Amino acid sequence: MRTSATTLYFLLSVYLVRANPIETSYKASCEVCHPTKEGYTNVHLIPHTHDDVGWLKTVDQYFYGQRPDIQKAAVQIIIDSVVDELSKYPDRRFIYVETAFLKQWWDIQSDERRAKMRTLIEKGQLELISGAWSMHDEAVTHYHSIIDQFTLGFGTIDQMFDGLSCAKPKIGWQIDPFGHARETASILAQMGFDGLFFARLDHQDRARRIRDKEMEFVWRASESLGNASSIFTQAFYKHYSAPSGYCFDLVHCNDQPINENPNSGDYNVPNRVNSFIEFVNSQKDTYQTEHMLVTMGDDFTYQQAASWFDNIDRLIKHVNAEQKNGSMINLLYSTPSCYLQAVHRADKVWKTKSDDLFPYADGDHSFWTGYYTSRPTLKYMERRGNNLLQVCKQLSVLAELKQEKWEDLDSLREAMGVMQHHDAITGTEKQHVADDYAKMLHKGMLDCAATAAKAINKLSAKITEAPTVNYESCLLLNVSQCEISESNDRFVVTLYNPLAQEASTYVRLPVQNFKYTVSQGSVPIATQMLKIPDHVLRVPYRTSTAVQELVFKATIPPLGFQTFYVTKTAEESAVPAPVEDDGKFTIQGNLIQANVDPTTGLFESLYSKQNGLNYTGLSQNFYYYLGSNGDMESSQSSGAYIFRPNGNATVINATPEITTFKGELVQEIHQKFSDWVSQIIRVYADNEFVEFEWMIGPIPAQLRLVDPGKEVVTRYLAQDLVTNGVFYTDSNGRGSIERKRDYRPTWDLDLKEEIAGNYFPVTTFITTKNETEMTVLTDRAQGGTSLQDGTLELMLHRRLLHDDGRGVGEALNEKYEDPNSGVSQGMIARGRHLFSFAPISDALGTTATAKARRWSRDNMILAPWAFFAPTDLSDAQWLENYEVVYQGINNKLPENVNILTLEPMKGGEEVLVRFEHFYEPNDDPALSANSLVPIYNLTKRFGTDKMIEEMSLGANRRLAEVSSSRLQFRTDGAGAEKERNIAP
Amino acid sequence: MRTSATTLYFLLSVYLVRANPIETSYKASCEVCHPTKEGYTNVHLIPHTHDDVGWLKTVDQYFYGQRPDIQKAAVQIIIDSVVDELSKYPDRRFIYVETAFLKQWWDIQSDERRAKMRTLIEKGQLELISGAWSMHDEAVTHYHSIIDQFTLGFGTIDQMFDGLSCAKPKIGWQIDPFGHARETASILAQMGFDGLFFARLDHQDRARRIRDKEMEFVWRASESLGNASSIFTQAFYKHYSAPSGYCFDLVHCNDQPINENPNSGDYNVPNRVNSFIEFVNSQKDTYQTEHMLVTMGDDFTYQQAASWFDNIDRLIKHVNAEQKNGSMINLLYSTPSCYLQAVHRADKVWKTKSDDLFPYADGDHSFWTGYYTSRPTLKYMERRGNNLLQVCKQLSVLAELKQEKWEDLDSLREAMGVMQHHDAITGTEKQHVADDYAKMLHKGMLDCAATAAKAINKLSAKITEAPTVNYESCLLLNVSQCEISESNDRFVVTLYNPLAQEASTYVRLPVQNFKYTVSQGSVPIATQMLKIPDHVLRVPYRTSTAVQELVFKATIPPLGFQTFYVTKTAEESAVPAPVEDDGKFTIQGNLIQANVDPTTGLFESLYSKQNGLNYTGLSQNFYYYLGSNGDMESSQSSGAYIFRPNGNATVINATPEITTFKGELVQEIHQKFSDWVSQIIRVYADNEFVEFEWMIGPIPAQLRLVDPGKEVVTRYLAQDLVTNGVFYTDSNGRGSIERKRDYRPTWDLDLKEEIAGNYFPVTTFITTKNETEMTVLTDRAQGGTSLQDGTLELMLHRRLLHDDGRGVGEALNEKYEDPNSGVSQGMIARGRHLFSFAPISDALGTTATAKARRWSRDNMILAPWAFFAPTDLSDAQWLENYEVVYQGINNKLPENVNILTLEPMKGGEEVLVRFEHFYEPNDDPALSANSLVPIYNLTKRFGTDKMIEEMSLGANRRLAEVSSSRLQFRTDGAGAEKERNIAP
Repeated sequence: MRTSATTLYFLLSVYLVRANPIETSYKASCEVCHPTKEGYTNVHLIPHTHDDVGWLKTVDQYFYGQRPDIQKAAVQIIIDSVVDELSKYPDRRFIYVETAFLKQWWDIQSDERRAKMRTLIEKGQLELISGAWSMHDEAVTHYHSIIDQFTLGFGTIDQMFDGLSCAKPKIGWQIDPFGHARETASILAQMGFDGLFFARLDHQDRARRIRDKEMEFVWRASESLGNASSIFTQAFYKHYSAPSGYCFDLVHCNDQPINENPNSGDYNVPNRVNSFIEFVNSQKDTYQTEHMLVTMGDDFTYQQAASWFDNIDRLIKHVNAEQKNGSMINLLYSTPSCYLQAVHRADKVWKTKSDDLFPYADGDHSFWTGYYTSRPTLKYMERRGNNLLQVCKQLSVLAELKQEKWEDLDSLREAMGVMQHHDAITGTEKQHVADDYAKMLHKGMLDCAATAAKAINKLSAKITEAPTVNYESCLLLNVSQCEISESNDRFVVTLYNPLAQEASTYVRLPVQNFKYTVSQGSVPIATQMLKIPDHVLRVPYRTSTAVQELVFKATIPPLGFQTFYVTKTAEESAVPAPVEDDGKFTIQGNLIQANVDPTTGLFESLYSKQNGLNYTGLSQNFYYYLGSNGDMESSQSSGAYIFRPNGNATVINATPEITTFKGELVQEIHQKFSDWVSQIIRVYADNEFVEFEWMIGPIPAQLRLVDPGKEVVTRYLAQDLVTNGVFYTDSNGRGSIERKRDYRPTWDLDLKEEIAGNYFPVTTFITTKNETEMTVLTDRAQGGTSLQDGTLELMLHRRLLHDDGRGVGEALNEKYEDPNSGVSQGMIARGRHLFSFAPISDALGTTATAKARRWSRDNMILAPWAFFAPTDLSDAQWLENYEVVYQGINNKLPENVNILTLEPMKGGEEVLVRFEHFYEPNDDPALSANSLVPIYNLTKRFGTDKMIEEMSLGANRRLAEVSSSRLQFRTDGAGAEKERNIAP
Repeated sequence: MRTSATTLYFLLSVYLVRANPIETSYKASCEVCHPTKEGYTNVHLIPHTHDDVGWLKTVDQYFYGQRPDIQKAAVQIIIDSVVDELSKYPDRRFIYVETAFLKQWWDIQSDERRAKMRTLIEKGQLELISGAWSMHDEAVTHYHSIIDQFTLGFGTIDQMFDGLSCAKPKIGWQIDPFGHARETASILAQMGFDGLFFARLDHQDRARRIRDKEMEFVWRASESLGNASSIFTQAFYKHYSAPSGYCFDLVHCNDQPINENPNSGDYNVPNRVNSFIEFVNSQKDTYQTEHMLVTMGDDFTYQQAASWFDNIDRLIKHVNAEQKNGSMINLLYSTPSCYLQAVHRADKVWKTKSDDLFPYADGDHSFWTGYYTSRPTLKYMERRGNNLLQVCKQLSVLAELKQEKWEDLDSLREAMGVMQHHDAITGTEKQHVADDYAKMLHKGMLDCAATAAKAINKLSAKITEAPTVNYESCLLLNVSQCEISESNDRFVVTLYNPLAQEASTYVRLPVQNFKYTVSQGSVPIATQMLKIPDHVLRVPYRTSTAVQELVFKATIPPLGFQTFYVTKTAEESAVPAPVEDDGKFTIQGNLIQANVDPTTGLFESLYSKQNGLNYTGLSQNFYYYLGSNGDMESSQSSGAYIFRPNGNATVINATPEITTFKGELVQEIHQKFSDWVSQIIRVYADNEFVEFEWMIGPIPAQLRLVDPGKEVVTRYLAQDLVTNGVFYTDSNGRGSIERKRDYRPTWDLDLKEEIAGNYFPVTTFITTKNETEMTVLTDRAQGGTSLQDGTLELMLHRRLLHDDGRGVGEALNEKYEDPNSGVSQGMIARGRHLFSFAPISDALGTTATAKARRWSRDNMILAPWAFFAPTDLSDAQWLENYEVVYQGINNKLPENVNILTLEPMKGGEEVLVRFEHFYEPNDDPALSANSLVPIYNLTKRFGTDKMIEEMSLGANRRLAEVSSSRLQFRTDGAGAEKERNIAP
């Protein structure tokens, strides 16, 4: 038992706080693997199904098999069928991956069926692989949510099987995601996984690796963390399907089953055996060991598992029978774990890799870089979902709520788990599925907010008879709409801060044209009114009476809240008019000043009041690419997955209309580029960055045949920045990763798509630098690049009229339909970039990147969350009834440590806490150092009567057990010196 | 125990001869039906699968699921899946029909799986329905083979389940056959079935019956047999599919599964429940009782039974839940037996029917009368298969062979069982399937012949050291080809007679151009040489050195054989030349003389030497219809199923070339109508009928788009016969049934296809009469009609170039491909008609029809079978070693009784014998009378130490048990007086 956590740079430390030590029910038999044969090519057949947690159909449609007209896929039946077929013959093996579906199945099973599945797991016949709620996308997901959804999956599995050791996943199985992130590899390693398997990598990379026998390697996923974040990785030879001709799926395939009755006219054993042997011979030399992994399955296969198992049974029997004729091929049922153990036993020295696997291209003209941006509003909503989920989970712990209903927390936990799926947040699902995701997420957010409201009520009540406050969240604040602030004379705003540090924020309340007072503990505070810009007022689905926004600055304690009391006065207030500018178009706060060129109306320079430097030669504007519909070189269209522009980008308007609004708290320049492109450039009084709040849409679109669709980007330019093609993007919002134009670190790139092929996923930031660093933080995932030195380009929104041929079968043509008129028009997206231009490290030595990461966390990822409630009480009465300020942790944590997770487990019986050291070794002279965090008494839930156990990242296994049992693979030495530096 | 059989007119009596009495293992629980609710509409949901024993794929392809590209259908998996899913919930029910597949499944199951199925049967969850080897066609099958294939199915079931009473089928389930035969109904009744269900009947008949609530009726299937051959019959409302929108098949359907999770965005219980209730309401008033049968399944459904059962579970639950809201609909899992018991309990008075259900039309222009003739060579081969099978089975009993291998008898038994399937003998299967059937049947015939050879060896060996004779069958005698007779100097022909009466036949041996002697027990007998006609010599797939046929007459004891010894002399023999006719073109034997018009070359008159009558005004010629490709009235094409001529028939040649050959044993006129139509008119010395041996093909066919294909018919005309549109055809080769042109007995026919709609199935004969009767006997099933008074028309061969849209997806364009040249041409068919023109009863009072039926039996169905063997022995040596004459039964049976079946059961442990009284009440003054047949000592296997038990027709239940337990249904009185006449 440890009473405090030593957090080393960039480490995630995980603790479970509970009344009693963890008991795991352990069954040794689950590790039984079929024996392999030395000297033979051992072909590990891995029966599997790939069950998208939504794609062409919604999650529930997939589970129940509804809409068979779209896709014949019923996951309930897959699991049923596999359980039955495994039970028939103990030799058979299967892996199951998606816990979202497994749980849905489990919930409607009898005890007998549940026990049957448990038995299969205990016998090692069924192996739960990966175990997250869904198979997350790796490009556009944030590590916070990745970890959460693994935790949800693992916890669910522990709950189903009562902590059964055999049931705990030990393998990463990212077979379908469209490229692979280094941070994902790191997370999987830290969860204690022994290996990582996937199918998709750049086709040129694949060809090179097959040639050089490097389909297997050890991925060194973090320099900071060394071996703890290294993971053995294997890319499949081709895809995750069964070998060509050997897909035995009754529903989806047309390959020939094996007829082993020699009396039959259709007996085909020799033919089926020989061509399988040919297949094995064609691939076996690609691998370093005498083991070869062959996936036997595909999307939604095994709805009738018998058709697979019967035939694989026969295949094994008859191929192995050839051994007596001298064949050196040995087939066996296996799982990735068994395969990995066999590979591990071979004790080879493996190559390493330390970059990532983006972008993914499956053809010279097919870069899967469009989905980095596809469905920008869904991507934003997901990010808001995470923010709220952390708020609810923390509040739930702090208020010691009992988790009783699914709606308490699981509703949003699960919705967020679903959203991480590689056809959810990616935007590569059908429209009706995207709608269902949004609905599910919305429901989750409402449920979660209700739980948070319950917690705030409990934590804030000063007296027992304090009336319950009906707190609500305003989920449409990004179109300046909030029913409570708009239509009440008196209301409160309680801001909760999910950071372990004090937080400041500028609150913006949509209000009518009256004057308002805001008081904090009966003391009125400074406010400012701002006109809601015309382009927002025009948004067709906005139904609001608000015409202006009431702005004030709030400061909130760590893991705490602060309540503000707002009163509408009787006095009307004219909507603030633009200032008559002196021709300079300058906006500023206490730290910086941003300037717009009066001639062009475009951003032109930035002045730092802190260091006195004036950065000129800057600019920013909007452009669009026309999507390709295919051309002479390739029929590839631009679509939901794939970005393929037809030529260079066209500027939308080089001289936008501008108006300026100024005040003490915030100053803004509103730019109108066209009917469908507008922007606010904004500087808050105390912020070091400039906000660019863009709004795009409806992107004009004509008839499908004549219009290829448009993909809108913004470009930030620093004229004098010599960057040699190098820029940086984040990896799942955590570490940063170097990118170089027209280049890949691990093979000689032959680049046929010079724009799309230089796009990379930007989860939270993109940066480029020389002595100065230009950084753009995003409020959601976007595709980004630097096509010329000194530029950063981010794709904001896409509307395309052709499908790109990767299965979704729809053009990415998001529309809003007016429920009254029935008229539909393209989707509008609005969002913010935080722009910073600064020396690569500041006076204290903090790198601009580290600061940017922190701004992202504070403003985008874990921003304070506002709860609104109308009230009949006066300000004074309010103070009699309620605490207006609350701090959840007893002591402020060291500045370099954050609480990544604070959440109730097992219905509140246990508490999970994750501490995150937020800085890499060279980020900051002071903050990069170790810190000691006292865990006991961190909150009142962490009493000394509790057990505190240090866990692996996924919170389902003790760290010590993982560290001692994880398979170690020898590497060729690169990065080996780091191994000495890993955390104890 | 009965020691002798009283056989009443036309009755089939069945006995099992065995060492011990039959023990059946009886489980009362299998009759458990779910309770119904009085006052409610009880909807009996019948989960079922319809598994064609070959159609688009071969039997084995269907079983193993091969060729999924053609059809996703794997019966092994269906049965597996159903067993698993039934085992999960005891409420669930299923029926299984095709024993051919059930056996194939059973053979590869573990004891545990077998026990599981047995348990399901004992619990009444799984009901074996119909239970024949396949679901036989009813138009073109012979009762002999129908009974055999039920016996095979029943015996197999008894063997699998150890005589379990619950497993014995009690319901006829002819859901797919294309029309229904009265004789089939009679057979099902005599097997003890309680009811008969089917889907297909003429669309006008259906409409009338729905209107008059006569979809249920009691079919009085034989006047002679009364109640014993009456059966409750129900036609389905529409088809045997699930109700529209409720096909829950994962593989074949796209209907919406039920999502019963109210939290789901795709919850659809109300919608699914309401539209099912609407469906029930739309049909329930069609039925006489408050019970309604709803089939839940279709072709090859239930490959994933869970998708059905899960959804039916939910449907029952939620529809019945509406009862609390006043719904009067009650859903239940049921089986046809349970449904029938409920209907029986209602104790209604039912309408009766005594005709049959041919022809079947599913549209005004869609008469399924083409398949009566489709694939004539396969239809002929099947009939030969039956002939041989009876020979082998009898010989097997007589020689007391032990059945050890599948090849002994089961090979042909099963092949014949398969051939009865309604897409086998019908010719409505794909070409590659037809090829597989032929291959299977050929293999069966070779196996069976080998068994017969073994028996003959055993029965004929005079001395223990007699060398084994390598008897072979010559299966290509119909193109005058037989390797043994052609290429050996000395050989024997042993003819076996499967009749219980002495048989005479004219043997024709293909030989080279030498002289031959034939001796019977060392005595040379009369022979005659005949030229093999040119049109046979030209057949491209004939590979023979024979140029002439050696003819002799053989007489063989009942159930016995006679060996003939044949010696080739050194002397060459010129092939017999045509006689120089005196211009009369007359051929004759001892009983009749047939005359051909010297001008036209066509048959013109018949003279009977027995009664001295000369019948003139006769004629016969060949015609063809052009098949329709669809026209303004309907897009219906003529095809494998459907006959739709485009206009009237065209004569092929009104003046054929003729040549005459005369001899003591036989006289022939060879007619050449064209390159592809030829005929021999033949009179044997001692026969009362004229043989017309036709050969058709290759039917010329051009490119598909321009050529509709041709359908070739022969017409027999008796100019002066006034028949008032009435003619008669047989029903499955047994009773005859009256047909009337442009008329149906049970509804007002609105006939849009005056040719096709007057076609009826002719299994063995067609006849029309006034005082004189004109009868044509066929050697295979053919479509036949009488389009004008005094004519009989039979369709001989069809070649069509368009598919007729009933699923087979191929044009009926049979071809023979030369293995050397690769050139393909249309299939040639050759066959015989026996033609008789005589007073309706002869001097003894025997009706012409009864005589015709007997000729058919003696010459076509149970003809003597020739076994050939080369020999090194001299005639004398042969006689030293072998008996050359053998009689299997100790006493000749009464002339009106035949042994329909004599076969070993349970590997030879038991013997099954069926006696058939061959005459209907008015057939013959003497022969129609009762006869007494001594059973004990019939053969030496029938010793008095044996038990003899009288069985129902299917030989799986004691007759007494069946008679006492069969459900009796009250009828409206029509035919009720007959009920008093049934056999005791």
